[in-house]
Amino acid sequence: MTSQVIPDGSIVTPKGFRAGATYAGLKKPGADTLDMALLVASGPCIAAGVFTENRVVAAPVVLCKEHLSLARPWAIIVNAGIANAAVGHQGLLDARETARLVADKLGCAPTEVLVGSTGVIGVELPMGIMARGIGDIEVDAVEGGHRFARAIMTTDTRPKEIAVSFPIGNQIVTVAGVAKGAGMIHPNMATMLAFLTTDAAVDEACLDRVLRNAVDVSFNMITVDGDTSTNDTVLLLANGQADNRSIGGGEPEAALQEAVTMVCTALAKAIAADGEGATTLIEVTVEGALTLEDARIAARTVAGSTLLKAAVYGRDPNWGRAIAALGRSGVEIDPQRLALYINEMCVLDEGKPIPFFKDAAVATMRQPEVRFTLRLGLGDESATAWSCDLTEEYVRINSDYTS
Amino acid sequence: MTSQVIPDGSIVTPKGFRAGATYAGLKKPGADTLDMALLVASGPCIAAGVFTENRVVAAPVVLCKEHLSLARPWAIIVNAGIANAAVGHQGLLDARETARLVADKLGCAPTEVLVGSTGVIGVELPMGIMARGIGDIEVDAVEGGHRFARAIMTTDTRPKEIAVSFPIGNQIVTVAGVAKGAGMIHPNMATMLAFLTTDAAVDEACLDRVLRNAVDVSFNMITVDGDTSTNDTVLLLANGQADNRSIGGGEPEAALQEAVTMVCTALAKAIAADGEGATTLIEVTVEGALTLEDARIAARTVAGSTLLKAAVYGRDPNWGRAIAALGRSGVEIDPQRLALYINEMCVLDEGKPIPFFKDAAVATMRQPEVRFTLRLGLGDESATAWSCDLTEEYVRINSDYTS
Repeated sequence: MTSQVIPDGSIVTPKGFRAGATYAGLKKPGADTLDMALLVASGPCIAAGVFTENRVVAAPVVLCKEHLSLARPWAIIVNAGIANAAVGHQGLLDARETARLVADKLGCAPTEVLVGSTGVIGVELPMGIMARGIGDIEVDAVEGGHRFARAIMTTDTRPKEIAVSFPIGNQIVTVAGVAKGAGMIHPNMATMLAFLTTDAAVDEACLDRVLRNAVDVSFNMITVDGDTSTNDTVLLLANGQADNRSIGGGEPEAALQEAVTMVCTALAKAIAADGEGATTLIEVTVEGALTLEDARIAARTVAGSTLLKAAVYGRDPNWGRAIAALGRSGVEIDPQRLALYINEMCVLDEGKPIPFFKDAAVATMRQPEVRFTLRLGLGDESATAWSCDLTEEYVRINSDYTS
Repeated sequence: MTSQVIPDGSIVTPKGFRAGATYAGLKKPGADTLDMALLVASGPCIAAGVFTENRVVAAPVVLCKEHLSLARPWAIIVNAGIANAAVGHQGLLDARETARLVADKLGCAPTEVLVGSTGVIGVELPMGIMARGIGDIEVDAVEGGHRFARAIMTTDTRPKEIAVSFPIGNQIVTVAGVAKGAGMIHPNMATMLAFLTTDAAVDEACLDRVLRNAVDVSFNMITVDGDTSTNDTVLLLANGQADNRSIGGGEPEAALQEAVTMVCTALAKAIAADGEGATTLIEVTVEGALTLEDARIAARTVAGSTLLKAAVYGRDPNWGRAIAALGRSGVEIDPQRLALYINEMCVLDEGKPIPFFKDAAVATMRQPEVRFTLRLGLGDESATAWSCDLTEEYVRINSDYTS
């Protein structure tokens, strides 16, 4: 099986999807600013969704779960600027009205529309602006996908898009995705949103499994600042237009899994690398853990260490911070068996520091990606997590006044 | 019962303790720099200790636990500059040798000496410098306590000392304490160290209970950056010189508990307020939680939110960040019952935002302490946690190169 990766593939690359975006007035105005986006499928789709585990759940997340249980979605409407979270019961009324406005425009049922929002918490959606925006959006199968990717950005510095194609029998199946920043970003207390499309014909239970597995090793393994949002949403729509034999188990499911995992991992790494103020992508791999859960927790804890993130910004090979973070993660370790690498450079082996040439360590940390590999020497499980460096710019972005 | 607080009381304020410090050459030199400190009691003390829960434990912590199980301590030796952590088996040999050098100087057994270290991880203690420093330290019952407080500082900007006196029967009992910064501070990947003394006569089990209770509501409720160190240590020595009837239960224990809690809380707040680069102390109180554990977790999670800390630095009443952090803490909440106050200003009630005058909110956040009160409306349990704002200076301090 050969997969073809299209780095700038948009969510309309799979057959039978159209998208578009407009500027409605929810973000501050700018020459190229877009703040509402619409994805429309060729018909009702098999769908899977993964949502925030924050106990304060934004209204659009509540509505998505409800609609996914009632109907097969045709469309996704997303606004940036206001999260529609922590506004009491009005939030759900406004999310419902948003879905109804899109349903009217497209001629489908409101339950066939999914809704996503990202932005500041505790502010109600201005429904007049929303209605005008929904009316204005035009969708197409070419440029609209890229406009969708830009519209959902908040302080992301670049859109995040990718597509992967692979053969199933005589058919080519494509999976594509778009995402926006994980940092809860000022002034829009933002959100991790990712929308995936595929033209695969696929069994519903299979699609759900595939998305959950992919999210577990990608979006669930990135951290920008430890703050998970009220709105985090990953949606995958499958419209069956590739005319392949419906996927459910076996080699075709493995191929789809690989493609969806590739798309999710690429988007997750792009989110981490584009964290607020970030200059460097940090990759932390934990090997030799007793259990997979230990490996995952350890990788995420080390990647999330504020001090390690600051050290990477300063190109400071202060590796004790990685060991201290590993220690507080609570996973099973034997300090005498620990090994640690910064990129290819071993700085700790069997629990003892290895003297290294500091200039070389600083040089290796000057690359746009810095990898820490921790070998626990206890078992066979491993996991990888991603984050970004902590910079003065992060503080500046997040300490400005809300309005 | 009336307690008298001596804000600048030193650890030699209780009868029968002497202390001193010297500059041995472990920190960069400076006009007033001290880097080794010694506390000597009038004789073997009843003692209690609470130590880091990090699984990577520094050698001095291992040695303290061993010595506390074998003997009653007379003395505590502390060095700043090098943590004596993650250096393999040599760490324990060096910690033992440090205790032996102090025992030789004082004429006691090595097991009667406790050892503390704070500083960079992965560097061996230079034992020649340590030996010279131990030889040089002179102890007294007046100035030496203040010198002790300064010697254990790393990038703390000020020493942290307090004493509390209260009557038991006809006797006056004093509890005093000194502490150093909780931030794991560059270039010394630092540590929370606190040393308490009391002249109370007290039962050993009672002293242990009292210290654990006090630490639970003070040092265990502060966070600067979420990174706990390999060396965190709180020690309390009681020498019985106050000649009170030995404390163990009842009203005298309650009085001692109150004093020890006051000392620990004052030191903990001082540590939070003096976090690296901090301008503002953040206090988060969670009320109305279902369980005490819920209240504690919620208060600590909100206080530790990177985004909330950045918002406080910017005097930005972006209270959604507190609610989002509460949501991800995993404790039981009902979003419709939530209330939130910034100082005295209600910004959320019954889950709905309360419109507020932004200038007033910004003004209230300009104070040196900012309080967030979260009312969950579910039960009777409450807890308070402290942290500090996140500033550009924090990033600068923690991203400089190690050497």
